[in-house]
Amino acid sequence: MNELRVFCPATIANVACGFDVLGLCLDHIGDEMVVRKTDNGKLSISRIEGQDLPFEADNNVAGVAAKALLEALGSEQGFDIEIYKKIKPGSGIGSSAASSAGAVFAVNKLLGEPFSLQELIPFAMEGEKLASGALHADNVAPALLGGFSLVRSYDPLDVIKLHSPSQLYASIIHPQIEVKTADARSVLKQSVPLKKAITQWGNVGGLVSGLYTEDYDLIGRSLHDVIVEPLRSLLIPRFNQVKQAAAKAGALGSGISGSGPSIFALSKGEQTAKKVAEAMGQVYSDSGVDFDLHVSRISHKGIHPIISNTP
Amino acid sequence: MNELRVFCPATIANVACGFDVLGLCLDHIGDEMVVRKTDNGKLSISRIEGQDLPFEADNNVAGVAAKALLEALGSEQGFDIEIYKKIKPGSGIGSSAASSAGAVFAVNKLLGEPFSLQELIPFAMEGEKLASGALHADNVAPALLGGFSLVRSYDPLDVIKLHSPSQLYASIIHPQIEVKTADARSVLKQSVPLKKAITQWGNVGGLVSGLYTEDYDLIGRSLHDVIVEPLRSLLIPRFNQVKQAAAKAGALGSGISGSGPSIFALSKGEQTAKKVAEAMGQVYSDSGVDFDLHVSRISHKGIHPIISNTP
Repeated sequence: MNELRVFCPATIANVACGFDVLGLCLDHIGDEMVVRKTDNGKLSISRIEGQDLPFEADNNVAGVAAKALLEALGSEQGFDIEIYKKIKPGSGIGSSAASSAGAVFAVNKLLGEPFSLQELIPFAMEGEKLASGALHADNVAPALLGGFSLVRSYDPLDVIKLHSPSQLYASIIHPQIEVKTADARSVLKQSVPLKKAITQWGNVGGLVSGLYTEDYDLIGRSLHDVIVEPLRSLLIPRFNQVKQAAAKAGALGSGISGSGPSIFALSKGEQTAKKVAEAMGQVYSDSGVDFDLHVSRISHKGIHPIISNTP
Repeated sequence: MNELRVFCPATIANVACGFDVLGLCLDHIGDEMVVRKTDNGKLSISRIEGQDLPFEADNNVAGVAAKALLEALGSEQGFDIEIYKKIKPGSGIGSSAASSAGAVFAVNKLLGEPFSLQELIPFAMEGEKLASGALHADNVAPALLGGFSLVRSYDPLDVIKLHSPSQLYASIIHPQIEVKTADARSVLKQSVPLKKAITQWGNVGGLVSGLYTEDYDLIGRSLHDVIVEPLRSLLIPRFNQVKQAAAKAGALGSGISGSGPSIFALSKGEQTAKKVAEAMGQVYSDSGVDFDLHVSRISHKGIHPIISNTP
């Protein structure tokens, strides 16, 4: 096998209560990437469609992630990457993670899978570091593993794939505004009240329990972020109205996707998720803010090969 | 049915990472209580063995909890309670919770079970309030429900019974020292670093996941408390040595039981738990501190009726 086309899914990090530890994988929302072996011993990016991103491998998250993998192996195999971006950078649904994770997945596959999916996470994190300055795994882990994932610990890295109920759907609205990562970070406080931290880890426990027992109501009751959302939501116009609209339309719960500005809601069943998306969209329709809407099952499989044909 | 004898199990609250939210139920370590209907319309406590505790119903956690239940029902049925204490008050393994929960369980049963076990929790919490000044549920919930329980939220009260793996055993050492509740509280800080809070809720997620998947190794990796244990353990002599001894003997993890001074360790299998208890005991044997040792399966059932015969 000398060439592979892969689907690189979008992901939702944090998932309300699980700031910095939880993430989930979307189904058909994502990029495509073609990776092929070359004879020149170099890592090149020959084509990028859909977004204006750097072609130099050292300045592109896919290039950096792939290089980290090749260096770990001591491999001198050359690769060329084509990237077909559909996820908008800065949307908060894991655009850089899709590219980072997609590159390491495809390169690993073409090399005969020297690494497991779990082992690929640290290489993909190098791409995230280029994108945001931080080695975070809450998007690349669900992108690689599929479903829900929990980053229990970074030192040592310990990522757990959680059970994901089959009727769980996400509705996502991406308002076309820019939230700078620096702003999303600067609003965070370095210390939090113990009482709120207890509330938060009670909800993390409730959410994880709800996922395993497929208790949708418990999942809904647990989808509360009392620490980060009250601060970051101030950067997203009409956030509370979107939340209220989602709840009224039957969503289990909602929150900020990653560091925003996208807002996600989880629902039981596709029909409800569609109604919820519509209700969320209505809030911005009334305001004149442009937006994208997505509805997706939580995907059990992460990045995966697709039949090769031109996109 | 006019009389009921119940077994009131000891419990471990917090369980390392789950400060204020997690608790588990022990198997054969606990008190007994006999509750019988009377004709005088009063709530009395006629016998207390094993400990020196108040006989006035309003000053006894069992009396206060039972009264809360009777008042909620508007019942004028009289009851007499006999308490056979085996759990030492101040040990940190839920002595007041055993009595509070035992009383409401027995009274409810004798009245034809107007309340579910879940619904009994708030009444039992009134006993906890008398004992500690705070309405906490992390001992009474596992005492009533058995197994592991998660107090996801207090407002509204939302308690979830988690799955509990069958090979999970607890080893507990109770050093005969006094840790005043006021001291155990005063060492806590009202705010915590966000980074540590994230570590803690990552571990709560990992522990809950490990319980459902019966992944003993994951349970062990998640049994870390980076927030409360570093402060409260200073009040318990040789705490770190006990932890190290438990780990060396094969425990999955360990921590402070409730607010101490008891220290618990969890292990896979009874044999390992026994070795762990022995190793923990050795630390205090060498120091001259008196101690009690317990080894117990995590009990799937909480408080339950036992065949009536004098203790």
